[in-house]
Amino acid sequence: MSGEFELIRRHFTRTAPAGMLGVGDDCALLSPSADATAVSTDLLVEGRHFFPDVDPRALGHKSLAVNLSDLAAMGAKPTAFVLGLALPLPRVDDAWLSAFAAGLFALADAYGCPLVGGDTTRSDTGTTLSITIFGSVPAQAALRRSGARPGDDIWVSGTLGDADLALRLLLGERDVPVADRAAVLAATRGALEWPEPRVALGLALRGLASAAIDISDGLLQDLGHVLAASGCGARLCADDVPVSPAVAALPAPWRRRCALGGGDAYELCFTAPAEARARVAEAAARAGVAATRIGAVDAGPGLRVVDAGGMPVPDLPRAGFDHFPMPVDPAAGSLPETS
Amino acid sequence: MSGEFELIRRHFTRTAPAGMLGVGDDCALLSPSADATAVSTDLLVEGRHFFPDVDPRALGHKSLAVNLSDLAAMGAKPTAFVLGLALPLPRVDDAWLSAFAAGLFALADAYGCPLVGGDTTRSDTGTTLSITIFGSVPAQAALRRSGARPGDDIWVSGTLGDADLALRLLLGERDVPVADRAAVLAATRGALEWPEPRVALGLALRGLASAAIDISDGLLQDLGHVLAASGCGARLCADDVPVSPAVAALPAPWRRRCALGGGDAYELCFTAPAEARARVAEAAARAGVAATRIGAVDAGPGLRVVDAGGMPVPDLPRAGFDHFPMPVDPAAGSLPETS
Repeated sequence: MSGEFELIRRHFTRTAPAGMLGVGDDCALLSPSADATAVSTDLLVEGRHFFPDVDPRALGHKSLAVNLSDLAAMGAKPTAFVLGLALPLPRVDDAWLSAFAAGLFALADAYGCPLVGGDTTRSDTGTTLSITIFGSVPAQAALRRSGARPGDDIWVSGTLGDADLALRLLLGERDVPVADRAAVLAATRGALEWPEPRVALGLALRGLASAAIDISDGLLQDLGHVLAASGCGARLCADDVPVSPAVAALPAPWRRRCALGGGDAYELCFTAPAEARARVAEAAARAGVAATRIGAVDAGPGLRVVDAGGMPVPDLPRAGFDHFPMPVDPAAGSLPETS
Repeated sequence: MSGEFELIRRHFTRTAPAGMLGVGDDCALLSPSADATAVSTDLLVEGRHFFPDVDPRALGHKSLAVNLSDLAAMGAKPTAFVLGLALPLPRVDDAWLSAFAAGLFALADAYGCPLVGGDTTRSDTGTTLSITIFGSVPAQAALRRSGARPGDDIWVSGTLGDADLALRLLLGERDVPVADRAAVLAATRGALEWPEPRVALGLALRGLASAAIDISDGLLQDLGHVLAASGCGARLCADDVPVSPAVAALPAPWRRRCALGGGDAYELCFTAPAEARARVAEAAARAGVAATRIGAVDAGPGLRVVDAGGMPVPDLPRAGFDHFPMPVDPAAGSLPETS
């Protein structure tokens, strides 16, 4: 009995659901399905996506939550997931792994999404997590990025900006204009570390939303993907974007920077025909989350962001988070379409 | 247009096959299937699984090959895969990425296994690759680890030990008893860097093999998993394990160390009823690979390794590769069952 296998057995082996073959063979087996299988994969890298001293329970939660969020954006029902763990020796620690597993499995159990396979390896540098998640959705009902049409409303769930604000405070950015940093961090940190994936909303939007995406890199950048895939433009009212009291208390440029440009929100941004407004509101209520109209799709070009008075917003945040930044054409009040 | 998206577009975006939604949405969509979906995931970490100066084309090949090998061990037909890339800035380089993509896609095309999604992120340390692969197999035909029965033959495909020998030479181990290191490395390096997954053999063994596994951690350790899952023991003849001329030229203890303990072989080890010998030989011939009988399953306990004269082998290699080694009970001539 070796250390690696014992460690996997102790923390990550569970009985696979009926019809599935789980951890402990060369492959997991997912049951045949009449629906399409939605697949999403995410890497989480220490120092990029989480701090070295992260609460392992929160890390377990968030690594699965960001993948569930991708299923939500597709209108898919979670089925199962596989986990890759590259661990430096200090992480091969019962307390750390058991807290990580507790956070991971609490969310997995809440969404009926079992762990069915994985890979564990040593890393000589930091911790890297890889999760690939599976969901089921009738192919015709899947919410794609490409379905937005001129005239559609643009909606967003929940509030935006808290995770970005919390991250700036944790990173020690000195110029963030808040008086009581500890109080603001306490109010916003949950959004960064314990995001709640909008799976129920995604399911409720089947047949209703024309396009959807989850906000991982920032509203402007992610909405830009929807518009590019749909071949449309949009007009977005910056002051209609819903924010928490903590973000609302910021000066306008900072408020917009966090709400429009901030990543890690894991809310859904979606489009729907204007005549479906009442049904969208009902779907959101059924899913237990707020949904707010923030703009409208048009024939374009590009994404035009205006303030409450209809004037172009001059100090737009950069186009979201980019892991490999390259020079971007700076066009005040307008973003180039991504593709 | 940002650097990350441009980089993905340039090197990794291809048109998804009919019925699949590929790179460029929140999830990929795999078509409904009457068969079960076999899923396997692997992490490859720089410094653990490949050298920093690895040929990127070989790395692209090998990262997919090790996953195809898991499908082969299950008797599954490759369907599609997703790729996670955590890259330090020096790797965000057109020449490196295009060579990596060339090696990856050449193998993907050869096996009809398209890339349908992924995730790219920056790493501040080394390169980490994550691949999750999908295959299809009728659930009843899947080759599991748990099907071996007393009386079954134990078989292995190809030859074992070359990859381990090449790795020892590349690591500069000074005590490897070879006269001409360069010549031996030239003869064995291909097995380490360009493994050929035994997908055709896995398919040919459906309905024929009682259990199968691919040899990634070493024959003794991987066969141990089959025996543990099947609740059996086995007697294995060390001198029947097929080796290349380079490994055959080593002194016996070294030959056994490489062939029985060496990882990264990506050959199949499988069991089949004795009465199926002729059909196994035909299946291997059809798949274009040698298959050699190396022992027999029995009621146990444990795995007993003997030499050509039937005597216990005294200097068994350690039980394969373990990423998190812990003290192992040293039982000469016998390995504890893994679980």
